[in-house]
Amino acid sequence: MSRTVYVNGEYLPEEDAKISIFDRGFLMADGVYEVTSVLDGKLIAFDGHAARLTRSLSELDMAAPVDMDELLAIHRELVKRNDIVDGLIYLQVTRGSPGDRDFVFPDPATTPSTLVLFTQSKPGLADNPAAKIGMSVISIEDLRWGRRDIKTVQLLYPSMGKMMAQKAGAGDAWLVEDGVVTEGTSNNAYIVKNGKIITRHLSNDILHGITRAAVLRYAKEAQMEVEERAFSIAEAQDADEAFVTSASAFVMPVVEIDGVKLGDGKPGKVALRLREIYLDESRKAAI
Amino acid sequence: MSRTVYVNGEYLPEEDAKISIFDRGFLMADGVYEVTSVLDGKLIAFDGHAARLTRSLSELDMAAPVDMDELLAIHRELVKRNDIVDGLIYLQVTRGSPGDRDFVFPDPATTPSTLVLFTQSKPGLADNPAAKIGMSVISIEDLRWGRRDIKTVQLLYPSMGKMMAQKAGAGDAWLVEDGVVTEGTSNNAYIVKNGKIITRHLSNDILHGITRAAVLRYAKEAQMEVEERAFSIAEAQDADEAFVTSASAFVMPVVEIDGVKLGDGKPGKVALRLREIYLDESRKAAI
Repeated sequence: MSRTVYVNGEYLPEEDAKISIFDRGFLMADGVYEVTSVLDGKLIAFDGHAARLTRSLSELDMAAPVDMDELLAIHRELVKRNDIVDGLIYLQVTRGSPGDRDFVFPDPATTPSTLVLFTQSKPGLADNPAAKIGMSVISIEDLRWGRRDIKTVQLLYPSMGKMMAQKAGAGDAWLVEDGVVTEGTSNNAYIVKNGKIITRHLSNDILHGITRAAVLRYAKEAQMEVEERAFSIAEAQDADEAFVTSASAFVMPVVEIDGVKLGDGKPGKVALRLREIYLDESRKAAI
Repeated sequence: MSRTVYVNGEYLPEEDAKISIFDRGFLMADGVYEVTSVLDGKLIAFDGHAARLTRSLSELDMAAPVDMDELLAIHRELVKRNDIVDGLIYLQVTRGSPGDRDFVFPDPATTPSTLVLFTQSKPGLADNPAAKIGMSVISIEDLRWGRRDIKTVQLLYPSMGKMMAQKAGAGDAWLVEDGVVTEGTSNNAYIVKNGKIITRHLSNDILHGITRAAVLRYAKEAQMEVEERAFSIAEAQDADEAFVTSASAFVMPVVEIDGVKLGDGKPGKVALRLREIYLDESRKAAI
């Protein structure tokens, strides 16, 4: 059965969901996005995603297409219309279609932002068996632009990174710049050494993960030590364990980095405990 | 009157030219483009643009949607249907629409590339009065990704750069990385000192301009000295003259850099001479 998706005020069958070739999202990657998880039919961390969307739009001088209450209503309507129990809601805002191509931003008064949302059903999303095995990662050079704190649709390099990982038989790639890890292709990266959780500090160099913020909060509440700083691949390979966080993978253990197994090569205790806490707390707070 | 544009094998009125919201060009900036000038109804440097497109596609493991003979035929058909005397033809290829969103590349056997072309009529394109006055540029940090040799649609930062230039009352921005100029937001950058033309050497750091290659060839044929190396803003401000080249601006003099006028603040002789040669030779070779 065809999904119902949302495009600029209309709920449409996915086959009919189209945008102009002049949309700046298509011609110039002039757009931002968010992905919100759904568990048991409820939205996980919607407020966090809405706040980050607002910030991304603001950093790019892009107009919000609807207010956040309406955005929540659209999310819920899509969950309902598509019978999503577990899954994802993808949202994208672009600077709209001025009807022709020009580097100069169009006037938002005459060119409204484009808003697109669609669902992906992922039954058992929180019970991903991969979390029990953990995943391997390779390291690759971070060639992305300099404003990774803005969640833009410039995803070609992360996509290339996933392909490099796939060709190497790995689950993902960690991006390395100036000798230290920035983050994964679509997640934040962590190592654990002697009980201390180490993850890159916030800056323009990495995405300010909604799941990252929540996981670090829960870690601190559970009396775990957290240090926010950069680390190298060599330090990561010498760590006791490692993991990544993202809105759709939650907390995912990493058991091998560039062919080097961490510890006994099984998911670490800290990662598994944080995954449990994160899922428990997120389900409680879901709306 | 509405333009006729080309989308995946069909010639359509521009209002009907749409692509799926699942197109990877829209969701992931997974696409490349070319812009070819038209003078007197003929294509300028089509072979160069076709060759660069082929290289961009190859670097990204993307399938060519049509062969280059057919691409030429589409260009000519659009010139004819839209009565273009002087103007531009914009072409974009994306990795197509696999019908859902995933970082992993879709199989090209089942997901054909998307091909979009449209025209922009620019009467008197080669007689742009700005070329007689020259333009001012500001310098900004180069925050783009690391593979600028691939002509992708990841144009958000160049677009932001044009806005920064506009706010500063300048015509464009030159991008600076590690203390030296890479290029302009949508053009290659040059300075001239003591009769010598200096422009950044080719690498992954800059676009391999089709106009750049032609202009350097004509310069050498005219016995001008050319040095391909990086230069700083300070060196540029101390130069006798400066200019940029692109497929649509041809050779455009730069007369002011970050508020500092070059020489007498008028377009330089080398830039004006190269513009003349380039336009003459390009018209002769146009197809």
